[in-house]
Amino acid sequence: MTAERLVVIGGDAAGMSAASQARRLRGPDELSIVAFERGHFTSYSACGIPYWVGGDVAERDDLIARTPKEHRARDIDLRMRTEVTEIDVAGRRVRALDRETGETYWTGFDKLVIATGARPVRPALPGMDAPGVHGVQTLDDGQALLESLDRVAPGPRRAVVVGAGYIGVEMAEAMLKHGFEVTVLNRGEQPMATLDPDMGRLVHDAMDGLGITTVNRAEVTAIRTGPDGRVRAVAAGDTSYPADVVVLGIGVEPETTLARAVGLPLGPHGGLLTDLSMRVVGHDNIYAGGDCVEVLDLVAGRTRHIALGTHANKHGQVIGANVGGGYGTFPGVVGTAVSKVCDLEIARTGLREKDARAVGLRFVTATIESTGRAGYYPGAQPMTVKMLAEYRTGRLLGVQIVGREGAAKRVDIAAVALTAGMTVDQMTALDLGYAPPFSPVWDPVLVAARKAVTALRRAGTA
Amino acid sequence: MTAERLVVIGGDAAGMSAASQARRLRGPDELSIVAFERGHFTSYSACGIPYWVGGDVAERDDLIARTPKEHRARDIDLRMRTEVTEIDVAGRRVRALDRETGETYWTGFDKLVIATGARPVRPALPGMDAPGVHGVQTLDDGQALLESLDRVAPGPRRAVVVGAGYIGVEMAEAMLKHGFEVTVLNRGEQPMATLDPDMGRLVHDAMDGLGITTVNRAEVTAIRTGPDGRVRAVAAGDTSYPADVVVLGIGVEPETTLARAVGLPLGPHGGLLTDLSMRVVGHDNIYAGGDCVEVLDLVAGRTRHIALGTHANKHGQVIGANVGGGYGTFPGVVGTAVSKVCDLEIARTGLREKDARAVGLRFVTATIESTGRAGYYPGAQPMTVKMLAEYRTGRLLGVQIVGREGAAKRVDIAAVALTAGMTVDQMTALDLGYAPPFSPVWDPVLVAARKAVTALRRAGTA
Repeated sequence: MTAERLVVIGGDAAGMSAASQARRLRGPDELSIVAFERGHFTSYSACGIPYWVGGDVAERDDLIARTPKEHRARDIDLRMRTEVTEIDVAGRRVRALDRETGETYWTGFDKLVIATGARPVRPALPGMDAPGVHGVQTLDDGQALLESLDRVAPGPRRAVVVGAGYIGVEMAEAMLKHGFEVTVLNRGEQPMATLDPDMGRLVHDAMDGLGITTVNRAEVTAIRTGPDGRVRAVAAGDTSYPADVVVLGIGVEPETTLARAVGLPLGPHGGLLTDLSMRVVGHDNIYAGGDCVEVLDLVAGRTRHIALGTHANKHGQVIGANVGGGYGTFPGVVGTAVSKVCDLEIARTGLREKDARAVGLRFVTATIESTGRAGYYPGAQPMTVKMLAEYRTGRLLGVQIVGREGAAKRVDIAAVALTAGMTVDQMTALDLGYAPPFSPVWDPVLVAARKAVTALRRAGTA
Repeated sequence: MTAERLVVIGGDAAGMSAASQARRLRGPDELSIVAFERGHFTSYSACGIPYWVGGDVAERDDLIARTPKEHRARDIDLRMRTEVTEIDVAGRRVRALDRETGETYWTGFDKLVIATGARPVRPALPGMDAPGVHGVQTLDDGQALLESLDRVAPGPRRAVVVGAGYIGVEMAEAMLKHGFEVTVLNRGEQPMATLDPDMGRLVHDAMDGLGITTVNRAEVTAIRTGPDGRVRAVAAGDTSYPADVVVLGIGVEPETTLARAVGLPLGPHGGLLTDLSMRVVGHDNIYAGGDCVEVLDLVAGRTRHIALGTHANKHGQVIGANVGGGYGTFPGVVGTAVSKVCDLEIARTGLREKDARAVGLRFVTATIESTGRAGYYPGAQPMTVKMLAEYRTGRLLGVQIVGREGAAKRVDIAAVALTAGMTVDQMTALDLGYAPPFSPVWDPVLVAARKAVTALRRAGTA
């Protein structure tokens, strides 16, 4: 009996989903699985960290979908606190470093899964490592931040959040919940650079309304510390923003150091390139998934890097199916993302104006205001929908939504329509759920589609 | 100058949308518009009546999207309380009866829009016309019901709702809000016959939990009245259910008496048959839309009768575009419907098991339980999703959802996928919005799609 050996690098969503799914399809007699995780945790929801820090989620362990013990109970040889330091592609083996003992050793593989995730962008600025400056990428980061908050003296307490993307705005909410005065320093023109600036402006206004100060076009130049070495302020341009705590939400980049070292193919954003079955291009026995890969943007026709748990889980599922002798593919993404700041919901899918221009598409835009419920139904609140449609073909290119209850998940309508290659004209006839508590008689997405059709007609194409 | 004349029969959603849209495209010099409405109101939301009766919507007039005065201000010659009693197809004229004066007269048309709506099914049973027995089809009905509730003596007050479809369950909620003990008498196996019985069972259980008594397989045989002539009980089989008020929510049928009298083509459900431009089949100058027509079910490939404001508005828009010299089509529906009873959300789209069987389709089903938010996020509540997929092709055939917050509008994902003809396998890769407050990392619809793929594989087709 010669069991094949699967080695997995990285014990989070993609890696452990792959391991679990492969195990489901092939028992330990057929497939031995060794998984290396350099940190303290497996299979946890990084997306949940802002809600744990903000107190919505009571316990750190609530974010852990599956513990090391649970993985081991399924015959996965999981080695925690063990970092893979080298991949020997030709020799089909990886070198591991046990961080507890300092021991290193080689482990052979028949099939390899690279799921090394992403690392936070941390600009090399003075004071970046001072106590009170925190990333929120890992559970350890979250724990450190919570402990740091406890150390801030009572009285008026000020938090500066650097970055106004998803993590930034979610952390702004979390800090607000801890009673901090919150300032968000944003490099871009408006918060939420994943939206067009006109839609980002709505987020800005809403954050103002929530008592969050947002400073746009703020380039952080230094973290200033006090005599005790702890953070005291954040300098951006000529201004110094007092800070008892600083949260970094600047974004992440693919962690592909190992892959790069052995010449595995990387895309323009530094992520591994895979085929539809999630095999690393040119390597039949090496798979990669999760935050360390680039994914095909089905609308733009090029790869992007998107660190998002839902993609990582799908990748893991596909890899596990293929390693396990089944069949699975990951066709790509349309770029859907949803978030919230307090009761403000933010969603986007497809291309922004600048994305469309960047790939040579001409388009029209339509922006409408409507409500999430029938206007006369209690709790009906405004919602703004922006839609992009391709010039001439009328094909849907993207949708952005900013509103309150019911705004975020409405973007799924557009996500499916994008996947199906629908035109905005086809969308006007969509049979969407209607009842007064859930939608006006014309769903806001349909109203936007109708306006986009009119815009196309005015542009002389329809 | 010889303006063309458009005559519209029926002043609600379809008729007045058609009139308004036609007017937008062609001014009064080109097109004169005469609209007849036999009732007291125009362009109101019948779907909103349960929420007005229940007190969520304060004023009757909140449900009126556009008043007669507003229509007239847009050069529409709207004749209220005037009933069209005859269509002379060959002579291109209609006979109108002014219900205030009793006067009748003929009005010629170049183009005609039939938007006569639907009428409630009212079984011919003893006591059906007794005081305290109320339909909820029109604003007048709603007003009469509200006045009737005021006349019920204080103390324990009992309402019997006949019918457990959308109107029935919504009216059960409304009566609950008025402090009534509510009994719903349901002819079918489970409430919400637009769902499969296994999903209707979940609604039944939830209604139990809300304190609503639901009696299934209850065939109403008589309304019993007291010495004052007012309703006292509802008899169904051997049982008599005490009632201080009775609400009829049995459903509606197309109001096509006029059309039938002149031999216009009707479908198997008694609704007018139209082509894609909403012209009555065989009649270039007669259009029809709203609750009086049958619509093509794109999944079943046959026509259905669905009385729903959102379709009526689309029909009106399409008719108005075509009459106004523009272009519009209504391709059909996939049968999406959403509703709620208190905080229970109910949604369906596509085919039920019996619909699929009725048109000769073989299929697999998959039912899953998940939550509307990440399991660890506060307020995450259970949601059940049932999915039907065609045997062999794997094409999505239908989805039913019962759950709490976020359940109903999730059905839109399936509505778009149905429209696009997606397979459940394709659906597993959909890039749906994910963030802990809005969805588990695998959206419930994706979980159902994955299970449907497994069911197909087990059935030997995938």
